[in-house]
Amino acid sequence: MKILVINGVNMNMLGVREPEKYGSKTLKDIEKELYSESFKLGVELETFQSNHEGEIVDKIHSAYYNKFDGIIINPAAYTHSSVAIRDAISAVALPCVEVHMTNIQGREDFRQKSLTAPVCLAQICGFGEKVYAIALNALVEYLK
Amino acid sequence: MKILVINGVNMNMLGVREPEKYGSKTLKDIEKELYSESFKLGVELETFQSNHEGEIVDKIHSAYYNKFDGIIINPAAYTHSSVAIRDAISAVALPCVEVHMTNIQGREDFRQKSLTAPVCLAQICGFGEKVYAIALNALVEYLK
Amino acid sequence: MKILVINGVNMNMLGVREPEKYGSKTLKDIEKELYSESFKLGVELETFQSNHEGEIVDKIHSAYYNKFDGIIINPAAYTHSSVAIRDAISAVALPCVEVHMTNIQGREDFRQKSLTAPVCLAQICGFGEKVYAIALNALVEYLK
Amino acid sequence: MKILVINGVNMNMLGVREPEKYGSKTLKDIEKELYSESFKLGVELETFQSNHEGEIVDKIHSAYYNKFDGIIINPAAYTHSSVAIRDAISAVALPCVEVHMTNIQGREDFRQKSLTAPVCLAQICGFGEKVYAIALNALVEYLK
Amino acid sequence: MKILVINGVNMNMLGVREPEKYGSKTLKDIEKELYSESFKLGVELETFQSNHEGEIVDKIHSAYYNKFDGIIINPAAYTHSSVAIRDAISAVALPCVEVHMTNIQGREDFRQKSLTAPVCLAQICGFGEKVYAIALNALVEYLK
Amino acid sequence: MKILVINGVNMNMLGVREPEKYGSKTLKDIEKELYSESFKLGVELETFQSNHEGEIVDKIHSAYYNKFDGIIINPAAYTHSSVAIRDAISAVALPCVEVHMTNIQGREDFRQKSLTAPVCLAQICGFGEKVYAIALNALVEYLK
Amino acid sequence: MKILVINGVNMNMLGVREPEKYGSKTLKDIEKELYSESFKLGVELETFQSNHEGEIVDKIHSAYYNKFDGIIINPAAYTHSSVAIRDAISAVALPCVEVHMTNIQGREDFRQKSLTAPVCLAQICGFGEKVYAIALNALVEYLK
Amino acid sequence: MKILVINGVNMNMLGVREPEKYGSKTLKDIEKELYSESFKLGVELETFQSNHEGEIVDKIHSAYYNKFDGIIINPAAYTHSSVAIRDAISAVALPCVEVHMTNIQGREDFRQKSLTAPVCLAQICGFGEKVYAIALNALVEYLK
Amino acid sequence: MKILVINGVNMNMLGVREPEKYGSKTLKDIEKELYSESFKLGVELETFQSNHEGEIVDKIHSAYYNKFDGIIINPAAYTHSSVAIRDAISAVALPCVEVHMTNIQGREDFRQKSLTAPVCLAQICGFGEKVYAIALNALVEYLK
Amino acid sequence: MKILVINGVNMNMLGVREPEKYGSKTLKDIEKELYSESFKLGVELETFQSNHEGEIVDKIHSAYYNKFDGIIINPAAYTHSSVAIRDAISAVALPCVEVHMTNIQGREDFRQKSLTAPVCLAQICGFGEKVYAIALNALVEYLK
Amino acid sequence: MKILVINGVNMNMLGVREPEKYGSKTLKDIEKELYSESFKLGVELETFQSNHEGEIVDKIHSAYYNKFDGIIINPAAYTHSSVAIRDAISAVALPCVEVHMTNIQGREDFRQKSLTAPVCLAQICGFGEKVYAIALNALVEYLK
Amino acid sequence: MKILVINGVNMNMLGVREPEKYGSKTLKDIEKELYSESFKLGVELETFQSNHEGEIVDKIHSAYYNKFDGIIINPAAYTHSSVAIRDAISAVALPCVEVHMTNIQGREDFRQKSLTAPVCLAQICGFGEKVYAIALNALVEYLK
Repeated sequence: MKILVINGVNMNMLGVREPEKYGSKTLKDIEKELYSESFKLGVELETFQSNHEGEIVDKIHSAYYNKFDGIIINPAAYTHSSVAIRDAISAVALPCVEVHMTNIQGREDFRQKSLTAPVCLAQICGFGEKVYAIALNALVEYLK
Repeated sequence: MKILVINGVNMNMLGVREPEKYGSKTLKDIEKELYSESFKLGVELETFQSNHEGEIVDKIHSAYYNKFDGIIINPAAYTHSSVAIRDAISAVALPCVEVHMTNIQGREDFRQKSLTAPVCLAQICGFGEKVYAIALNALVEYLK
Repeated sequence: MKILVINGVNMNMLGVREPEKYGSKTLKDIEKELYSESFKLGVELETFQSNHEGEIVDKIHSAYYNKFDGIIINPAAYTHSSVAIRDAISAVALPCVEVHMTNIQGREDFRQKSLTAPVCLAQICGFGEKVYAIALNALVEYLK
Repeated sequence: MKILVINGVNMNMLGVREPEKYGSKTLKDIEKELYSESFKLGVELETFQSNHEGEIVDKIHSAYYNKFDGIIINPAAYTHSSVAIRDAISAVALPCVEVHMTNIQGREDFRQKSLTAPVCLAQICGFGEKVYAIALNALVEYLK
Repeated sequence: MKILVINGVNMNMLGVREPEKYGSKTLKDIEKELYSESFKLGVELETFQSNHEGEIVDKIHSAYYNKFDGIIINPAAYTHSSVAIRDAISAVALPCVEVHMTNIQGREDFRQKSLTAPVCLAQICGFGEKVYAIALNALVEYLK
Repeated sequence: MKILVINGVNMNMLGVREPEKYGSKTLKDIEKELYSESFKLGVELETFQSNHEGEIVDKIHSAYYNKFDGIIINPAAYTHSSVAIRDAISAVALPCVEVHMTNIQGREDFRQKSLTAPVCLAQICGFGEKVYAIALNALVEYLK
Repeated sequence: MKILVINGVNMNMLGVREPEKYGSKTLKDIEKELYSESFKLGVELETFQSNHEGEIVDKIHSAYYNKFDGIIINPAAYTHSSVAIRDAISAVALPCVEVHMTNIQGREDFRQKSLTAPVCLAQICGFGEKVYAIALNALVEYLK
Repeated sequence: MKILVINGVNMNMLGVREPEKYGSKTLKDIEKELYSESFKLGVELETFQSNHEGEIVDKIHSAYYNKFDGIIINPAAYTHSSVAIRDAISAVALPCVEVHMTNIQGREDFRQKSLTAPVCLAQICGFGEKVYAIALNALVEYLK
Repeated sequence: MKILVINGVNMNMLGVREPEKYGSKTLKDIEKELYSESFKLGVELETFQSNHEGEIVDKIHSAYYNKFDGIIINPAAYTHSSVAIRDAISAVALPCVEVHMTNIQGREDFRQKSLTAPVCLAQICGFGEKVYAIALNALVEYLK
Repeated sequence: MKILVINGVNMNMLGVREPEKYGSKTLKDIEKELYSESFKLGVELETFQSNHEGEIVDKIHSAYYNKFDGIIINPAAYTHSSVAIRDAISAVALPCVEVHMTNIQGREDFRQKSLTAPVCLAQICGFGEKVYAIALNALVEYLK
Repeated sequence: MKILVINGVNMNMLGVREPEKYGSKTLKDIEKELYSESFKLGVELETFQSNHEGEIVDKIHSAYYNKFDGIIINPAAYTHSSVAIRDAISAVALPCVEVHMTNIQGREDFRQKSLTAPVCLAQICGFGEKVYAIALNALVEYLK
Repeated sequence: MKILVINGVNMNMLGVREPEKYGSKTLKDIEKELYSESFKLGVELETFQSNHEGEIVDKIHSAYYNKFDGIIINPAAYTHSSVAIRDAISAVALPCVEVHMTNIQGREDFRQKSLTAPVCLAQICGFGEKVYAIALNALVEYLK
């Protein structure tokens, strides 16, 4: 089983960016823990981060050609503005779980609407940096 | 660790109600599996279902007096109309995870807005009946 | 043929409540006439009134288990606020006729939108207290 | 007692037009059955169909001069765009029942708002082609 | 100087239609007085009424070919729904005064917006049936 | 003079619920002070609290049958969602004062609109727990 | 017969202000012509201009105490923001004609809604500076 | 204890203005009764009325410099349009009670939103002219 | 292959109407060129223009009975107001291409929404009078 | 070069009003520094403050008659409600720079829309009390 | 004559992506056919596809410097979100035809509004993959 | 002191792009003048332009790591669509001044809302190409 984990724009600033909201771990720390988790689950993992909408689209396409079984994606700010990523997820037709470290329903109005979630299998919001491991377990459980 | 699992209105019709959307398992089946899961996790569980908004509010209040550590709630239709349940969750100030078996972001407009989610710790939508076990694991992980 | 007639919140105040708008007959009077009408039509009838949203949901569920052939419902104020009753009607998947004694399209803005009508077979608004007999005849005609 | 039955735009295409939605009977078939029904009820009937908004307005005016007791109207598409027909109904001040073969509350957004219903006595939506006979019986019952 | 006076849909019902709102004079009475007024002003007048949107458009076109100097129009209900009449007024590019017997700003929401007024020279609302004579005097004064 | 004081959903949590917003007094404390106040004013008082919308509707109906002279009501969360309570107040046609301990105009958007206030005699928002005594004095003054 | 003519904010800049839109005549020029017109009609006239909302309210009040028969008002920019002037017109309950030199229906969105017109007898928009004389003649005709 | 009572625009017309809505007492009558009430309460009172938004702002500022303990304000029409009065209330940071003689929640849409209430301590709507005495008692009670 | 070309309201004024926007060719000129084009393509053509919504509906119906293969339609102003023409196109279920001589997306707000386009096969906007020949070629190409 | 600096409503409370938002300097302090700055720039300066919308309009008019070269204006609360000041700025047709001490884009919704900015040359928001000197330098630079 | 054909985001997935909606041809297939078509028309063609908004902007700029005569663009998902591409088209001021393979007016709400179309010469929606050849012929015809 | 100046999408077309709106200077010209200005102010300057949203995000991040003291940014079209750039500015938490060469409040509706301004220190709109020098002076003044 092969899972792709995509982090969107500004996620490379984790640890630096508003630590009272997003915690002090860096993205590298989180990805390292996620690799351990995937090891336990016997799942092949690939992680990817980009600030470029087009590169995220390219990566989603590649998941199709490289025969991934599922995608975990935190599009970050692109969640609320990117029809392109939405259409990419539809195009590859892979089960996709959208995650957010914060509970976006309780934040600014424009963050409460996700353009990408309607074409995903599921959405998980909250739990801080643990949301990635939760999503990984859930997706693996679902794909079994 | 004590966790309360609340199912809202019409959830007692699971198995009967639109099985192509909600699956053929009954709520009893799901709760039974959830008890096994809680046993594995070493967590004390209580499940509750009601079609009455006021009874759900009462139950949330009781979680405060009975010293539960967290709540998993699927308010079902009340998600979209009940300020009362929202305020009850705020009042008891317990970590609460809102769950939905379907990805509500991809359904009718009026189902895309949750009145209760903004005062919850987290929200998980999708994964069918597995969403309860996923939420239980996630909440226990979070509370550790 | 078995038909269930449900009256929602405040309908027990008929005769007392704004008689210039709703007439001076009580709900008992109307139900009595409806039983005569059902007798003429050779139809088994049950009537029910409650001010509690949850009890109305329970009653709709019971119609499924008690093998009713159809439902006539005047949700009254719940027409405009209850996603729960809407989902209950969907869940039991019985032919349901929504009725109102007044022409709600000509009243306040918030009364012009029915949350429950979209999942009903049909809707009849107006004709005063005669709307129940009209709906009963229509539903029986439809079910033949 | 004299009743006028008006069918609006595109209703002459019944039987041809989307038969899975509107049934396979033609308007002629329906009108023929309605004449039988009126005969049973001892009511004088006139039927009329036009695709022209202005002709429908003219016909409503004529109902006033020809001393009809009531009108049954299915304005079809003009339901949602014609202030003119609305004002014509107000002008003649005759009891008018608006009918639709489908439950318009469950269709596209722009079909859920009726410009004409607020000035009618009552509205009946659904029941397929039987809606005309139901309305005729209801109106006659009301006028008694 | 040649002036065309157009009355739209339902205006032929004046005197019959809601006399407490529109007065008891018929359109014929009003037009007769308007001819006297035009005689005093030394202006050639033509009056026209139709319930058909298309006929009103045709008449506006004819004003162009017959070299009228200006138009007074009360589109009645078409004021609020007819892009066609709006475009006809633009097409002939004649000075046009829109009139209403009642003060439409104080009526229902949908009557407060005029589709046709933005392409007219001026708009006069209120004054009852005297609005026609007022508009005629004003337009003649303006054209001088 | 007989006055009924109704407190809606979650008000039984006063003292526990967000004390920085609602103060540390319990509902019992407040009701006790209100009985003293009523004693001073020579008024018969009854207090009632429920988390169930339907029970609140029932209680309002009972005020009619038990010949109360007026109602003081804090519907709490139901203020913003209950057409049912609104219609119950209209149905009994008793002078009713809506109260809120906080100034709801300064809180979340959905709390700024009251469905029930338009059918009440008056509304008082703010003053913390003193709002009940203020409303009692005001209502008694008004009924004299 | 006594008529008061009120001009609102910035109208003292006529002739200076956007002459391509409002013409090159000053307010003094227009008022002089209006006095001639009133002389012809045998009507007593008073004119008033102020840039202060409160002074315009005061002046409207004074029309009540000084027994004027009617008011012609061009509130200018206050048309779109002043509930105060609206309430003043309601308070004195005098027939009032609102005028605008331009056709406000064809200008910016926020100029298309008049707060004051709904409580006036009539509204005239367009005709440039001639609108005052037209309104004077119309109002005198109406009051006869 | 020093309290300032401010009445806004058109309030000087009380007794003249729509007496069926606002009663037949003049503002002078009401203020006289209020002075008696303040005397009973042992409170120093000052009353003020103006039709000028700017003067009301000036007066609110003066309450700061003259060390008033609280303000009772009925901004009347300015309630719905004046950001200036809102900011003045914020600027002086004194406890302020907004009052209205009618229940504004049950009137026109534009009167249901108060720009000033969100920065006030409390709001009381209804009770007719008694609302001033009620507010005075309530504010004094609050300030104790 | 038989194609029907329908031009809606005001299109008979081409050449006269705002020539800087619509060019100086008349509709006759355009139709003549279109006949040449159809001759080249070996297609049977019929052209039709009407200012009457009802006549356009009638013509669309006739296309069904006369076995046309496709329709090219410029509903002009009816594009934005006619549910009737929309339903007529659905009823006949023929491939239909909506055309506009100008790019309506760049014009007034109310012209940017087409009621008819959603039920058409395709829409072409812009290219001036050449849009008809372009649509004819495209439709023929599509039908091959 | 002559520049007029206008401060709107409540700006005389600077130093008193919410000092954590607006700083502790008074308007006098700021104006004094601005005079030094103008001296350095060799520019003639006049400053003005009023809480009265009408006086601000009058002052803007006077800038035209007194031949000022430009205006710097902080309309404060009138920014969001005053069509009158907007029209005054248009009327005098002088280059005008709108300034705000806070970044209004980041405050309440109703403060994010400026009615006056669209008719100004430029707008500067933020920088605290330094915004006046920045605007003065910028305007002088622009006028050179 | 030189024409640039730009395909936006996800168009490289044609053939893979939802083939029931977009057909089974790949973008390569379509471009090959388009080159044949351009050869027939004697036109120089360049094709370009990118998933990156910025690269599409760069390419549009390059069309200006490389002296292309026109652009055919299918921005795909960027149609609905990219002000950047809109401004790029405005900046180069070349005749641009926007195309879509499906009739976007009949799809989701957010796909019905095009940000880019208002600055294009024309828009063609529908006809499947043939839309490119149709647009090429139309643009060449237009440029002649 | 180190300041970063970022220009967004299409700004490389300055001089070419709509020169009547943006002037004839190129971005190179403007940046050269800005370097002179920074030299006078004794400030270290870096300029950057990109059409790629992701590259702009990367550059903002780099300002954090390279210890810049502030940012001047003209996101151009991305102002209205990029949540990503907004979040990048929040993430680095540097004082940021948003600039626009035109007064965006007076342009199309969709240009009046800035997604990025709410997280900036200040915003300056207008003054043409001088806006950069004005912002540089203002930011330096602020940082002192």
